[in-house]
Amino acid sequence: MTRMTLREKVAQMYGAWLDVDDSAGEVAPHQHDQTPDPIDWAALLPHGLGQVTRAYGTTPVAPADGARRVANLQREIIAAGRFGIPAIMHEECLTGLAAWQATIYPAPLSWGASFDPDLVERMGAQIGRTMHRLGIQQGLAPVLDVVRDLRWGRVEETIGEDPHLVGTIGAAYVRGLESAGVVATLKHFAGYSASRAGRNLAPVSIGPRELADVLLPPFEMALRAGARSVMNNYTDLDGVPVAADPAMLTELLRDRLRFEGTVVSDYFAIAFLQTLHGVAASRADAAALALRAGIDVELPGANCYGAPLLDAVEAGDIDEALIDRAVTRILLQKCELGLLDADWRPEPPALDEEGSAVDIDEPDARDLARRLAERSVVLLRNAPVDGTPVLPLAPGARLAVVGPGAAESGAMLGCYSFPRHVLVHHPDVPAGVSIPSVLDALKAGHDVTYAQGCPVLGGDDEQIAAAAEAAAGADVCVAVLGDLSGLFGGGTSGEGCDAADLRLPGRQEELLEALLATGTPVVLVLLVGRPYELSRQIDRLAAVVCGFFPGEEGAAAIEGVLSGRVDPAGRLPVSFPGAGASQPSTYLAAPLAASSGVSTVDPTALFPFGHGLSYTPTTWGEVSLGPAGGWATDGTVEVAVPVSNDGDRATSTVVQVYLHDPVAEVARPERQLIAAARVDLDPGQCRTVTFGLHADLLSYTGRDGRRLVEPGDVELRVARSSADVHAAVRIPVVGPRRAVGTDRQLHPLVTITG
Amino acid sequence: MTRMTLREKVAQMYGAWLDVDDSAGEVAPHQHDQTPDPIDWAALLPHGLGQVTRAYGTTPVAPADGARRVANLQREIIAAGRFGIPAIMHEECLTGLAAWQATIYPAPLSWGASFDPDLVERMGAQIGRTMHRLGIQQGLAPVLDVVRDLRWGRVEETIGEDPHLVGTIGAAYVRGLESAGVVATLKHFAGYSASRAGRNLAPVSIGPRELADVLLPPFEMALRAGARSVMNNYTDLDGVPVAADPAMLTELLRDRLRFEGTVVSDYFAIAFLQTLHGVAASRADAAALALRAGIDVELPGANCYGAPLLDAVEAGDIDEALIDRAVTRILLQKCELGLLDADWRPEPPALDEEGSAVDIDEPDARDLARRLAERSVVLLRNAPVDGTPVLPLAPGARLAVVGPGAAESGAMLGCYSFPRHVLVHHPDVPAGVSIPSVLDALKAGHDVTYAQGCPVLGGDDEQIAAAAEAAAGADVCVAVLGDLSGLFGGGTSGEGCDAADLRLPGRQEELLEALLATGTPVVLVLLVGRPYELSRQIDRLAAVVCGFFPGEEGAAAIEGVLSGRVDPAGRLPVSFPGAGASQPSTYLAAPLAASSGVSTVDPTALFPFGHGLSYTPTTWGEVSLGPAGGWATDGTVEVAVPVSNDGDRATSTVVQVYLHDPVAEVARPERQLIAAARVDLDPGQCRTVTFGLHADLLSYTGRDGRRLVEPGDVELRVARSSADVHAAVRIPVVGPRRAVGTDRQLHPLVTITG
Repeated sequence: MTRMTLREKVAQMYGAWLDVDDSAGEVAPHQHDQTPDPIDWAALLPHGLGQVTRAYGTTPVAPADGARRVANLQREIIAAGRFGIPAIMHEECLTGLAAWQATIYPAPLSWGASFDPDLVERMGAQIGRTMHRLGIQQGLAPVLDVVRDLRWGRVEETIGEDPHLVGTIGAAYVRGLESAGVVATLKHFAGYSASRAGRNLAPVSIGPRELADVLLPPFEMALRAGARSVMNNYTDLDGVPVAADPAMLTELLRDRLRFEGTVVSDYFAIAFLQTLHGVAASRADAAALALRAGIDVELPGANCYGAPLLDAVEAGDIDEALIDRAVTRILLQKCELGLLDADWRPEPPALDEEGSAVDIDEPDARDLARRLAERSVVLLRNAPVDGTPVLPLAPGARLAVVGPGAAESGAMLGCYSFPRHVLVHHPDVPAGVSIPSVLDALKAGHDVTYAQGCPVLGGDDEQIAAAAEAAAGADVCVAVLGDLSGLFGGGTSGEGCDAADLRLPGRQEELLEALLATGTPVVLVLLVGRPYELSRQIDRLAAVVCGFFPGEEGAAAIEGVLSGRVDPAGRLPVSFPGAGASQPSTYLAAPLAASSGVSTVDPTALFPFGHGLSYTPTTWGEVSLGPAGGWATDGTVEVAVPVSNDGDRATSTVVQVYLHDPVAEVARPERQLIAAARVDLDPGQCRTVTFGLHADLLSYTGRDGRRLVEPGDVELRVARSSADVHAAVRIPVVGPRRAVGTDRQLHPLVTITG
Repeated sequence: MTRMTLREKVAQMYGAWLDVDDSAGEVAPHQHDQTPDPIDWAALLPHGLGQVTRAYGTTPVAPADGARRVANLQREIIAAGRFGIPAIMHEECLTGLAAWQATIYPAPLSWGASFDPDLVERMGAQIGRTMHRLGIQQGLAPVLDVVRDLRWGRVEETIGEDPHLVGTIGAAYVRGLESAGVVATLKHFAGYSASRAGRNLAPVSIGPRELADVLLPPFEMALRAGARSVMNNYTDLDGVPVAADPAMLTELLRDRLRFEGTVVSDYFAIAFLQTLHGVAASRADAAALALRAGIDVELPGANCYGAPLLDAVEAGDIDEALIDRAVTRILLQKCELGLLDADWRPEPPALDEEGSAVDIDEPDARDLARRLAERSVVLLRNAPVDGTPVLPLAPGARLAVVGPGAAESGAMLGCYSFPRHVLVHHPDVPAGVSIPSVLDALKAGHDVTYAQGCPVLGGDDEQIAAAAEAAAGADVCVAVLGDLSGLFGGGTSGEGCDAADLRLPGRQEELLEALLATGTPVVLVLLVGRPYELSRQIDRLAAVVCGFFPGEEGAAAIEGVLSGRVDPAGRLPVSFPGAGASQPSTYLAAPLAASSGVSTVDPTALFPFGHGLSYTPTTWGEVSLGPAGGWATDGTVEVAVPVSNDGDRATSTVVQVYLHDPVAEVARPERQLIAAARVDLDPGQCRTVTFGLHADLLSYTGRDGRRLVEPGDVELRVARSSADVHAAVRIPVVGPRRAVGTDRQLHPLVTITG
């Protein structure tokens, strides 16, 4: 590095946004109308190019062709620079690689609903292998924001509303992705989900305790899982934009959490310091603030870290040592990735031959997508109609399949899947993979009539009437309602697609009423990026199945649950609101937030966090506590419960452990998940799940801002959901008030025997 | 005090809740089902009794009788104790003394809408004189919470959403009340209005800068105005209940803001530390936490500060010095009030004679109530219908007067007015004063037909159809819609009456649609405790008049505006939301919060903060800046604007000055009110309003948590509303970054000449 010129160093610190379908050097337009300054490619490359973002771009390109173009670009970059340093190639990968023909996995709410970190880790590894094969070194996922307001459009990108669940599942994804040699990027550090009224980019009102106890733990867990990059949150926290905050990006992230990777900016976040936050007078100012705060890489373009930064350093306004700090991190990461090895070559071996194809939706990947979809479908309600639940559907039942999501492949997909992510610029782009709709899947096994009823938004009375007519003539009506996910105004869910309230979009509630009025039992299938209010209809619905955005194999999973081929065992990662559950809300509420009698607004959830039904009954036995009477010398207590399958088919159940701390220094949630295990059970099988719970899991941030464990009784609630407690045990915590550091135990030890 | 026993000291520290209609010693039931423990009166009194809360209680008692009972109780207290120390008698007084037959003034949103601190000060003084005459020493008002979420039921008790306005008007009320020798109690210190989702008592997510820059300034202004008591906010801030927080109640309030009066608990707030916050294991624990934090007086009852506190001190768990600290403050206040003077007697002279009456709704008071109501009505819209605005109503116009508020006296009243405040226990209690309805007032001068249309909640199709029929047969339809204010479930606005959304309550929006469908021009009169969403109807409404809760003379004021007798000049103290303006929201938004293109939710207000129309046109002249080119040596700049009345009748206009700071250390509001003046103008008159603005008014809380003024250009916007700028001037702030203390200038100097 000592041999690099300032310009060569700075060239490592930003990412060109390339659309590989266009000529290299042309930059795609961008969602915020903040087009990066045009890059003079010929002038730039001799100094190097540190990063390329969206390497596969927004128009369909065959994977092999894309990989070859990426490789060619790498060769160009290597050849043009004095040191031959390859760029780090970035791509989005939240629901699988966001590229044409790549497997589209379920969106993250489904990961949360599966309560299955092992499966999510396998998915992460599969995504990582795909990216690695195509020459991509960095993936811009996972999103670890903890849901605080269901109106926020990006709820669908999150894993849920509980930090333990988000952290456990998010860390699993990270382990998987990193196992394939791909850098995982933790988004969005930190606080984005708490933006005011759930509006994208709006300010965040928050204090240090809520930040430390709710929003940070998933990042801590994912950093320990080996994530090597972190992306800043766009918003300000109590007035200070995170992109300009050394307390967040250096003191907390580096000094306290000991992160050694790179911090990349969210798109245009550095420029926003001037244009939207008003904390910088110029781009150079913005660059200086971000660099000092700890952002190493500007994405995309070089609006601030290009000429403005160069000029500022040369004018003496910015210490070059800060440049060196960032470049050291970037080069160390390239070194770790092997990019600086003498024998590193840009193209993966599989692509050696011109014209060779590569399958990035191979059977193993589709199987994984299917398995995760099946394990994440949540059966919310299955009420008897004339004494018998409607689900599983009776063989031979005549079905009316209606609703905007019924015949739409796109209804399966979250906003960061390839077709949705490029929608804003290329609305007609195909996915490149087969995505059956629910209608397709149900047609295979049933006598089906179809009527759309209404689109996600809009529609007319005639359409609704036609759907009601179809329902009236059927034994069961399957109503597939929900969102169209998109970006920046292109949908009802997704980045920038925030909701003003939680009514089903468009005329879908009217459609549902019309269907219910027919008297035909209605099974509501939700393909949604967020929970919606169902309280006005819930008592009249025969069944409700929530699939969130289940991905390319989602229809088969939904069909499997409806037909009974799959026993549903997903559990809600986010609460469904009751009639009065206005936003923001969280199940992590202190008693005051949930107390009745003090407000006309009842915050009780319709379906609480952790809720989900199965067809097969399970019996949970007596909860035991060990060692006798308290804590082992290693500071853990063991809580065990036997669970047995009373049915005649395989099923799963999710054992959840909630902490209730009756007296603390500060107001604490009435209940908070500290452990969970999904237990698969063969027919008749009994297995015991044992949670080794370290006392650190009881810790919280006290009045002085430090994390602590304090003496006193706590209650551990072994539960089927946050509102359905199987058994509660009280245990005393003894000893003095004890400070707990960032090296604390973050995970329970889960053992399943039998 | 050295001669007092511990028990005698503690007896000064709580307030018995007496209902003077019941026998002394019986305590009224209470809104939170947290009945105070019964007091053994005979055992208690010999030790003294420091405070009596709700001295006039919740059932009607003639003022003179009430005063005599209060005096008798005082005599009993004085006689029973060793030292003969009188109690401090407390009553509610937010919209006037909350007692039978007392004048009911407009609720605080109307104070804000008047932009007239002098008039509010006169009202405060009148209220204070009434209380003083009746033997009451402490009034539990004003509410200085700054609106952050319109769904909160207590919005109606606030002065608005801007700290400068709330502080200016609130301080005026305090000056008035205190001028009569009555202790003003500032509520609720601090942060209550930011409770999650606007739900009463819910947790508050907030950081130190938002607290310091938005929520605290009104308290600072009112403390400087001489307020001698402060009541805690019920909620926690970022987990720490204010009632248990020495950082708030001692370090901030006492040490930094130099407050020397008493801190009283909100009702049952100390017990809540155990029951709802979970930060205390027992009542003694709760008492210790509150006492250490700085609460001097428990209201009501002695649940925590009675036996539990005594026991804890005697057990050595609480240092008696803390008791002494509280009792010193209480006795000093009694001393200041003259209660410890040798010649103090409980009964005011006017009540010497048994059977004498006292008028507490005398003509002067009613005149004040009328004047404030007239000056606070806001004309939001007055669109031409066939070329001519419908308002003022044409003489002889046939009116259909409809809506749930049209014929209801109660529609004029906020939840802390006597009839509303006691509603929960005595629903049929009369006000004791004459409260004409809008219908009564309009009948006097117009040909009127009336139909209710629907009640505030509920109603049926026939009623709506009947109202539409009445509208169809009239020249103009006056639709009086809005809230029923009440407490704890008894209303659609008021304490504990929070809203899940901002649609007009019940079927009122349907009613409005039915009226609009008739084609008759509709004038919407809002009698509301909060703004509601009108975006779906606004373009079809001929005119919209907002009266908030205008009090006993409100109908005359509304009629005056409709008929043109009064030229409306009220300005909105809270924004009316647009279609996408989900909550929480505030006009004090940084650019990110208001930027378009990043979210499908448009936060633009339908009617912005500061908006209001008049019938009479005014011309605003050129804005001048003095002294030449910058700041005077005393650190002020003068901004002046001439305004002239172009009409042929008297009117007012409200000149508003907003600060825009383009670059700062932290994200700041795009605009923020720093000065305002209501200017009364005779026909043809031209007057110049000059604002002397000290640089301290530009200060804000920086990254390090300290308040500062920094160099750089700022823009001063002389405006008709927060969204309607007449002229903007840029001025440079020179010199180094300067720290600003709690002794900073808080008010502009406003001069009106001509």
